Amino acid sequence: MNEAQEITHETPYISIDATVMRANIARMAELARARGVTLRPHIKTHKIPAFALEQLQAGAVGITVAKPAEAEVMAEAGIRDIFIAYPVVVPSKIDRVLALARNIELAVGVDSAAGAALLSKRAAAAGMTLQVRLELDTGLRRTGAQLHEAVELGRTIALMPGLELSGIFTFKGAVLRQQATLDVAAAGKEEGELMVQAAERLRAAGVGIRHVSVGSTPTAAAAAAVPGVTEVRPGTYIFNDRMLERMGVCSADDWAARVRVTVVSVPAPNRAVVDGGSKTFATDVQPGNPPLNLEGFGAILGHPDAVLEKMNEEHGMIRSAAPHGWSVGDTLDIVPNHICSTVNLHNAVWLREPGGDRRIAVAARGMLS
Amino acid sequence: MNEAQEITHETPYISIDATVMRANIARMAELARARGVTLRPHIKTHKIPAFALEQLQAGAVGITVAKPAEAEVMAEAGIRDIFIAYPVVVPSKIDRVLALARNIELAVGVDSAAGAALLSKRAAAAGMTLQVRLELDTGLRRTGAQLHEAVELGRTIALMPGLELSGIFTFKGAVLRQQATLDVAAAGKEEGELMVQAAERLRAAGVGIRHVSVGSTPTAAAAAAVPGVTEVRPGTYIFNDRMLERMGVCSADDWAARVRVTVVSVPAPNRAVVDGGSKTFATDVQPGNPPLNLEGFGAILGHPDAVLEKMNEEHGMIRSAAPHGWSVGDTLDIVPNHICSTVNLHNAVWLREPGGDRRIAVAARGMLS
Repeated sequence: MNEAQEITHETPYISIDATVMRANIARMAELARARGVTLRPHIKTHKIPAFALEQLQAGAVGITVAKPAEAEVMAEAGIRDIFIAYPVVVPSKIDRVLALARNIELAVGVDSAAGAALLSKRAAAAGMTLQVRLELDTGLRRTGAQLHEAVELGRTIALMPGLELSGIFTFKGAVLRQQATLDVAAAGKEEGELMVQAAERLRAAGVGIRHVSVGSTPTAAAAAAVPGVTEVRPGTYIFNDRMLERMGVCSADDWAARVRVTVVSVPAPNRAVVDGGSKTFATDVQPGNPPLNLEGFGAILGHPDAVLEKMNEEHGMIRSAAPHGWSVGDTLDIVPNHICSTVNLHNAVWLREPGGDRRIAVAARGMLS
Repeated sequence: MNEAQEITHETPYISIDATVMRANIARMAELARARGVTLRPHIKTHKIPAFALEQLQAGAVGITVAKPAEAEVMAEAGIRDIFIAYPVVVPSKIDRVLALARNIELAVGVDSAAGAALLSKRAAAAGMTLQVRLELDTGLRRTGAQLHEAVELGRTIALMPGLELSGIFTFKGAVLRQQATLDVAAAGKEEGELMVQAAERLRAAGVGIRHVSVGSTPTAAAAAAVPGVTEVRPGTYIFNDRMLERMGVCSADDWAARVRVTVVSVPAPNRAVVDGGSKTFATDVQPGNPPLNLEGFGAILGHPDAVLEKMNEEHGMIRSAAPHGWSVGDTLDIVPNHICSTVNLHNAVWLREPGGDRRIAVAARGMLS
């Protein structure tokens, strides 16, 4: 990197290693191919159309998003197959979804008869048939119908005008950091098996489920290995993060994203303050909580004895076991505990490619609706 | 609000009550006037030029920011007196600060001889005199020189070419949520007294300190009452939040900002899932930690028995003691634990004025450098 580039990279900023990112993209695509399932990555991790397009080029069948506005940004970039894995229940948002569905292959999540009825009413009034997928709860206890309700709910939704119930989906990944275990293989296997059983019960009841969609980065490999699973929707794998490394899902060599910060103060030989705090690093995965037991808010690369132990909005407080030797103005690279919510704090990232660095806008961030 | 407006307000969004906000602005301005100190609000809470201008109209002498980029956005909006209360140590950022200082009244924080030397070198080379203020640590242990170093450091900095050491400053507000006490009056009094003593020692040593600048929203009143304090720099008071209410610094009637969310799923009669999670509500002030002991991630207005107990990125999980009676599509208003870092997640806010609602961009958010 020459000096002119260095100047434009003012800290704090996220740096993405393109080589590592592309290896991560290729590895997950290969996993899906090997298992005979389709890959529909969740773009919540990066929110960048160019990266979604790279995932598609590597073999993804389409993408997953959380919000109509994210779908709009991605469709604008030319992506033609999008699943909004979230209940869309606000009338104006439903109308935006229907507008999108006129132009691209679109599916929307539902997890209740009440929510499906809202979609049905507006889709039927527009003379359209909207693809929906029923969300089932395989343990996370957030959205998602209970498994024992799946057949009754699926039959109800399948009868609603204006809707085509084409699949079922679940998300179990975040369970792992709430439970006492980090056994991602067992979690993925259970996730896949519960969903395949539900799909079979639905089919036996006459509901023609085509897509059995599961998975997060930690559970994707084991869930995809369950016969009958048709699709995985991991997101974080594109960058990986400290949480996934702690789960044993990636190694530190697979970290594609880091936050570069500058030392702004050295209050003591074993302390340093950097220019990244809670407006730069996400705080949703806190240090200390089992089973992850992460020390601090990120891994300080090359300094395993140093801990980013505390943050205010614009200050990160680092403590090291031994004197660290840093001076004001030095830069450090930190891999955050959770990369998805960290990227969400940044308007742009720097993509480090062999030929140079490029600033890329996080185009779908802040698309709150 | 008419239907057309309602449609454009898709959840989740931040709603600001203009009447409450203006009362908050006026109250702090009056407090500063009554104490005979200047008011230089920190705009980190809102990052919106129009709101900073309202603070100035109400009597603030200038504003405080954390970053050169925030100063640039605010200067662009016509604000002529800005203090960057943060060590600026990166050469390219120093050059941006010097460029700004050519056009407006600007001061920058320093907390070390090394950091001051970086400023001195470039300011002197540019033939300029840059105003700096020395940051002192009154207990927070982040940036800020130790009090016993103040005289020696102040004398060193005052001799550096290209710099004018015009004041000292500190920030103690965030100490309160780390300590076992919420005694904001005692904290503010101590903050003010320590700083006045430091200023007197510096003056006795021949360093002409004009500004003795203290305070956060919780400590402003008590610190401003200490004779010799010249300025307060509160930020959060413009909106207030749940943390400040818990500290006894404001009442629920003084909450100007809330996040409106929609119920997207009702998994059980005493549970609900809303469309705001950790990408909508800040997670830097966690539930449960003493002394705040906040239940959940926000106050759910009108529902004191309901707790926003868990969040994923786009899901907020609410549990209520009794059945809540909410349906899919209902909206709830939630006051977050910490409003500053919550606003930082949003590209815009809606300002609710007597005549109607206006969407206002959070123009200085994401200005990471």
